[in-house]
Amino acid sequence: VSAPRVYAPHATDSGATIELPQEEAAHLTRVLRLSAGARVRVFNGSGREWEATIDRTEKDAVAVTLEAQVAPASEPRIAIALAVAVLKGDKMDAVVRDAVMLGIVAIRPVITTRTEVSAAAILRSHRIARWQRIAVSSAKQSGRAVVPKIFDASDLATALDTPDTRVMLVEPSADVASRSLADVPAPAAATLLVGPEGGWTPAELREADASGAILMTLGRTTLRADSVPLIALTALRVRWGDF
Amino acid sequence: VSAPRVYAPHATDSGATIELPQEEAAHLTRVLRLSAGARVRVFNGSGREWEATIDRTEKDAVAVTLEAQVAPASEPRIAIALAVAVLKGDKMDAVVRDAVMLGIVAIRPVITTRTEVSAAAILRSHRIARWQRIAVSSAKQSGRAVVPKIFDASDLATALDTPDTRVMLVEPSADVASRSLADVPAPAAATLLVGPEGGWTPAELREADASGAILMTLGRTTLRADSVPLIALTALRVRWGDF
Repeated sequence: VSAPRVYAPHATDSGATIELPQEEAAHLTRVLRLSAGARVRVFNGSGREWEATIDRTEKDAVAVTLEAQVAPASEPRIAIALAVAVLKGDKMDAVVRDAVMLGIVAIRPVITTRTEVSAAAILRSHRIARWQRIAVSSAKQSGRAVVPKIFDASDLATALDTPDTRVMLVEPSADVASRSLADVPAPAAATLLVGPEGGWTPAELREADASGAILMTLGRTTLRADSVPLIALTALRVRWGDF
Repeated sequence: VSAPRVYAPHATDSGATIELPQEEAAHLTRVLRLSAGARVRVFNGSGREWEATIDRTEKDAVAVTLEAQVAPASEPRIAIALAVAVLKGDKMDAVVRDAVMLGIVAIRPVITTRTEVSAAAILRSHRIARWQRIAVSSAKQSGRAVVPKIFDASDLATALDTPDTRVMLVEPSADVASRSLADVPAPAAATLLVGPEGGWTPAELREADASGAILMTLGRTTLRADSVPLIALTALRVRWGDF
């Protein structure tokens, strides 16, 4: 069994002794029942990872000493961010978890015309913080040393406003000129845009098209909205020779 | 809104008037509240689909007349069957639903050494019938006219015994020579083998290797067991130019 992975965003240097965040400390002492001398792996969410030893533990407080830096799991060559219309209920939890596992660098929740969740509801229910915790947990489990940032919810115009190559996934039934996966060459960095259960509106498709985004269809089958990000991310990474 | 899709495995000829299966009939009359004269689409699960009109309805019984045959949603060029170690709880439900959506032609549940569900438990809980109903439902929603067959649970040797090209997904950590996705050329037909949460045993890897199966790894990230079939199917279809 390998050493448990611990997230410490302020870890920077071998040799340093640092306090772990309270949530991580509580997990080590209460769930895993580890004490001074136990070996762990510490990653900082920005791509660095260390071997470490627990220095001392108190109630919900753990200090570890960072030792040799280790090579983190490899990240995809091409950075892909996901801009995704917020799905209903807890479907976004699975989208965040899966997207992080598939190597995404950031997630931007988007409120579109047909999104059935309001920005106010997202704020009120502290969803961004929840998705950020899920991103930490998914990075931990999948072996990544990078924790993708979950942005605050934005509108489509904000999501389109990036120097990345923008690839907007459109339904085969959409009345718009689109490319197939084979016609989307590998970019330096990409933002993948995925719409809500009800799809993009014609105005949103025109807005994206006018901004220079690539409109792409994936086959002719109807896919479930909460599986689409996972399928589209896998398809792009394979298409771009990055899997 | 398009006409509801109805599954009738015994539908074969335009012009015929047929009774629908009881479950389908009940859905049309009780949930959708349709009556004589309503238009539906009938598909037979073997790849054929018709426009149809409801002829008469009684309690839980509906007769429809098949009219013009319509072109069904296109199926993948390369037929892929999925042989998957049975996952715990209701995770297999999602695997079946997603695999059908992604164009699989058949699903073979496999009991491996590390599978945590017994063949007896599968029989006792009527799981095969449940998964077959999920396959019908997923075909209906995704627009496919093909309903993949769910085989009875079998052992690995039975799953390997097929003229298809067999591609067994192995973890990057497995101590075995494996190919990457890029080195798996397009076959005429394939069976994709996916292991349980705990992975294949060394003996199972040797058994597959000795039988001529291709052992393939997908990147170096740890993926969640219930997402692996969806990711692997997408990856193979894109790699084989069939998405």
